[in-house]
Order: sequence, then C-alpha cells, then structure tokens
Amino acid sequence: MKHDTRNCEIPIMNKKPPTLPFDDIRALIAAMPGPDEAAVAAVRARDGVLTKPPGSLGRLETIAEWLAAWQGRSPPKVERPLVAVFAGNHGVVAKGVSAFPASVTQQMVANFAAGGAAINQICATFDLGLKVFDLALDLPTSDITEAAALEEAACAATMAFGMEAIAGGVDLLALGEMGIGNTTIAAAIYTALYGGPAARWTGRGTGLDDDGVRRKAAAIEAAMARHQGHLGDPLEVLRRVGGREVAAIAGAILAARTQRIPVILDGYVVTAAAAVLHALDPHALDHCLAGHCSAEGAHAAVLERLALAPLLELGMRLGEASGAALAAGIVKAAARCHSGMATFGEAGVDEKN
Amino acid sequence: MKHDTRNCEIPIMNKKPPTLPFDDIRALIAAMPGPDEAAVAAVRARDGVLTKPPGSLGRLETIAEWLAAWQGRSPPKVERPLVAVFAGNHGVVAKGVSAFPASVTQQMVANFAAGGAAINQICATFDLGLKVFDLALDLPTSDITEAAALEEAACAATMAFGMEAIAGGVDLLALGEMGIGNTTIAAAIYTALYGGPAARWTGRGTGLDDDGVRRKAAAIEAAMARHQGHLGDPLEVLRRVGGREVAAIAGAILAARTQRIPVILDGYVVTAAAAVLHALDPHALDHCLAGHCSAEGAHAAVLERLALAPLLELGMRLGEASGAALAAGIVKAAARCHSGMATFGEAGVDEKN
Repeated sequence: MKHDTRNCEIPIMNKKPPTLPFDDIRALIAAMPGPDEAAVAAVRARDGVLTKPPGSLGRLETIAEWLAAWQGRSPPKVERPLVAVFAGNHGVVAKGVSAFPASVTQQMVANFAAGGAAINQICATFDLGLKVFDLALDLPTSDITEAAALEEAACAATMAFGMEAIAGGVDLLALGEMGIGNTTIAAAIYTALYGGPAARWTGRGTGLDDDGVRRKAAAIEAAMARHQGHLGDPLEVLRRVGGREVAAIAGAILAARTQRIPVILDGYVVTAAAAVLHALDPHALDHCLAGHCSAEGAHAAVLERLALAPLLELGMRLGEASGAALAAGIVKAAARCHSGMATFGEAGVDEKN
Repeated sequence: MKHDTRNCEIPIMNKKPPTLPFDDIRALIAAMPGPDEAAVAAVRARDGVLTKPPGSLGRLETIAEWLAAWQGRSPPKVERPLVAVFAGNHGVVAKGVSAFPASVTQQMVANFAAGGAAINQICATFDLGLKVFDLALDLPTSDITEAAALEEAACAATMAFGMEAIAGGVDLLALGEMGIGNTTIAAAIYTALYGGPAARWTGRGTGLDDDGVRRKAAAIEAAMARHQGHLGDPLEVLRRVGGREVAAIAGAILAARTQRIPVILDGYVVTAAAAVLHALDPHALDHCLAGHCSAEGAHAAVLERLALAPLLELGMRLGEASGAALAAGIVKAAARCHSGMATFGEAGVDEKN
C-alpha cells in the first residue's frame, strides 16, 4: 500500500545534546507571557457583529478568543498547524508493564515515516503538518523502579530538544507521543504529583489484562519507594519517573508559550508532561487546550485537576496525537468561522429585534 | 469581503410541486433497507489488523462500521460528502416567538450564497459540498396556532423535494436548516410526539428573553389545542405543526436510507424531522449519526429518546448544519483511518504479546 507521507519529517535527537540545566527551565517559566487581552477584546467585538445569534457557535467562539489571546493577534489564524509526535523508549518495560513489545516504538516511528499510522491519516484529512521526533530510541531510559529515568542534564537537554518542535513557523501546535511503556511513566508522574495509591492512576494502556495492570501498579509503587524523598520538585519527578518523550513535550509546551503559539494537548501521556509544568506554575497551561478526554484510566480526573475541559470525548486511547489532531480540525474551523464570516452589515442581514 | 462560494448551489423549490401523498411515504418507510452486515464484518476484520491496539480509536472505529453498514461497502469511503441546508418561513412568527425578524431567513440564504455564513467556513475547512434549498420562502406556512402549517399534498411534495438533496452522487449527507421561527416548530413537534407541557421542549432559540420563551410556549400550547385529536399520526404532526424545512429534511433522511447514504443530523430542529420518522418506525434512524448535542433547550433529552449518542458537544445552537458539518470532519477522518492505515503485516510492526 502507498501512503501519503507529505509533511512528515523525522528529526533525530543527538545523543549527546548540549546541557540546559533545570534552572534555565525555571527561568523560562518565570518569564512566561500572559494572554493578549487586547486581541481577545477585538475578537469579542468582531464576534458580536458576525451573522449569527450571539453565543450560538458555543465553544468555537471561545476557541477563537483563546487563539487570539495566545497568538497575540486578531483575527487569529491557523495557517501553519503542526502535529509533533515525540517517541521514546523506557527501561521499565522490563517489568512487564505493556501489552506490546518495546520493539514497537521504533517500528511505529517507521510506520509514521511511511504514512501508515492513524496520525498520518488524520493529518492528511485536516491538512496538518506532521513531525515525528525520535528521542534516542536505542537508549531506553533507566528502569524507574531501580534508578532515575534520566540524569538532570539529559532531562533538561531533552526538554530543549522538544522546544525545536516550533522551529520553522508554526501557528498551532498539537502534541502527541509514541512509546511502549509510557502510560506507566505517565501514571508514575501522576502518582508522584497527586499521591497514591498507584492503582488510582493506572490504566490498561495498549490493552493489558488484569494481571498486567497489577504488575504495572506494582512497578509504579516500587518506583515511588525507590525515589521517596526526592519527589517534591516537579522537575525531579519528571527526570526520576518520567521519560524522554514526556520531557520533550514539556519543553515544547513551554517553548510554544514563549513564542505565542497555542497548544493542543493529546491524551493521558501528553497530559503528564503538562501536569509537571502545572505543578511548577498553575498558569503554565493557560495557552493549552485539552484536545480530548482519553479512555485511558484516570485521564478525566487529571484534566479536572488541571481545570482543562476536553474538546472531544470519543473513547480514544491511541496516543500519536490522534485526539489532539482531531481537535485541531475543530480549531481550524473555529478560526475560519471567526475570520471568514460576514458581519450583519456586510451581508445586509437584519439584527435582533 | 470576498467569500469562498465554491460548491454552494441553491436549488429553488417550485411552488406548485407534484403531489406525493403520505401513503407513498409510508410505503418507502416499509421498504427501508437494513444494514449491510457483511460490510460491517469486513470492516471489523480489517480493523483488527491495523497498526494500533484493538479498540484504541474508540468511536472512530464504530463510525467506520456505521459507514460500511449504510453505504453497503467495505472499506467505506467519504469522497463526496454533502451538506444540505433547507430554509423555510413560518406563519407562527406573527406570535412573537423569535428574537429575529422573519426577513432574516431570506437574508441568510443570500449570505449562504455569498459564502459569508458559518456553514460556508466549516464546509471550506473540511472540503464538504454545500447545497442550500430555498423552500418557497415568500410563502410562509400557516400559523400553527390557527391552522395546519401545510396541506397534505404540499407537505408530501416538500418531502419529495427534500429527497433531491442526494441527487448527483453523495456518499455522506449532513443535514441542516435555516428558518426564523423553526425552533417553535420543532418544540411543537416534540410536544405533539412526546407530550407536554410545551415548556418542557421550549428553548431560547436565537436568543429569546424570558417573556419571549413564555410567548413561545403559549403559542405551542395554542397549537396543541387547535390540532387536538389529530396528532396521533406522526405525518399529521409534521404537516399540522411542522414546517417546510422539517418536511424536506424528513424526506432527505428517508431518501438517503433508500439510496444507502449515511446521514449526519444537526441539532434541535433537524432532530425534529428525525423524530417524526422515528415515531413512524423506530429503525428509521439506524443510518443516522447525531452530529452534536445542541445547547438549545431539550435537545439532549430528545437524543436520549431517539437512542442517538451525539458525536460532539460544543455548546453550539446555530443550526445551518454547523454541528453536523463539524461532525462530518471527524467522520472523514474515521473513514480515512480505516482505509488508509497500514496493517501490522504491511508495516512490519510486532503484534500484541
């Protein structure tokens, strides 16, 4: 079968990246820009004279405001939307926490490159660019039950690499991931940030049976015991029980904020990266939209903690940015409605009685 | 402002259409085809070998099955999706039931033709064809508080005209409406089909204040009293307290069923047409997907009665097929995922442990 591979670039992470220590990350967070209130006011003013009853486009109207707030312009535009998928491997898979073998991470990256995955089809449907980031797949992170997943330098460097997602001109960024074992990593981050028991945050991932879910929760409990006393700092949580794709996504979210690019989060794993930033600063996700509510385990509860209202709820749990990319289609429509609709005056339509 | 008008055709209904009596409608309903179970089985078999965990695309997977069931082919395809918007005027607006003047119906049809409405932007975003049907706008239906909206011949002829929505090759049909006063008509249909009080089914429409809502519910109660004893037959409900766009939409839903075209319903008013058919035969909507749950009044309760689970819930209440067209974007993605994804074998991806 021949697949559509347009726009699919796959940067490969240098295995010896330059160091960016956590202090630089904290400095970036401290300097995050706020919303552009003037752009929001301009969107509201225009929305009020478009040919429709006030409020009748519901969430499409608030999406237009959100785009303007974080792009810092009115009308907002979605002309260069990008889906960025980050792929990593995880030492903890040795503990039998996934229904699929670790080999699948690399194989799925090849499938992305060949245009054969779900995310390729969704990007083609909605004309979204796609980049897949291979995060040193032949060097899995350390098994979190035995050691920190990453050294601080490697974690910070991976965050910096994730920041490259926005290179080249992007006006909407949808974030996703691929990584056998990474729902274990995400559940570990939630357990560390929000408290246990691990089972509360642990789901079936790619399709674990009940025994598998017990193994997964036990591995997370072991990781919590191993790193006890070192999980008070969210960045320490990220490097100790996280993984490369989660670190890179956290970097991408942060870079998008500084460069005024609105972000759409995918599901359970991407939200773990978001949760780390939120734990560092409760305003760190103000430029982020939750693309969907995943069918995976505790995603709904996590979104509620983060005060993120998901745009879609379609029972999906694939990852790959699949939910975020579907949401990007809706966001494109919202932007186009706002910028493309006629006003009452332009169209000669009578206003409300 | 210059708008994109590609694909926007506006057939105009002949005001003296040929007669198609209700008996012919009943015969069509009795002869409705069922789902293509072989196509569904083929979709399930292919879905099981696509490069993703089983079930992980959630509702996208069941949408692919639904498309195959009602297109009668596997894989299903969405290559000629059409949004059909039916516009009608209503005598009951004389009772002060709308926040906007009746002139707006015709003006909005002109806005559709000029490419300036929300539905134009959504169709352009998702590459959907658009046809707007002008249903004798200069001849409003009779005021339902005083007479039957339509004679049987006119109602049946309007249903027949609605059937033309599928002319010219359509593989997915999204249905919408425009008509000042038509949320009153829809509420009257729900009250007639499901019982009162009218206030239970009555919402704010394009933005009524509390007094307006009371006037609207009172008009519906008056219509119920006027037609008492004649509302046992759903087709009589349609012609007595309905309207032209609702009749045409009922015709379009039925024609799509006979021609094996899956249908996406828009919101509160379109669902009233669907409810008439459902009251005639509880399987009449098996080929229909509820595109969204409207913010208008009782739409959620109606969908529950019809056992239709809405795809989207975005707080929209515009009509124009806006919710159905957004859903059509998701349906296109679902079809493309199913037909375009690689199998485990094709992609060389290892299967589940």
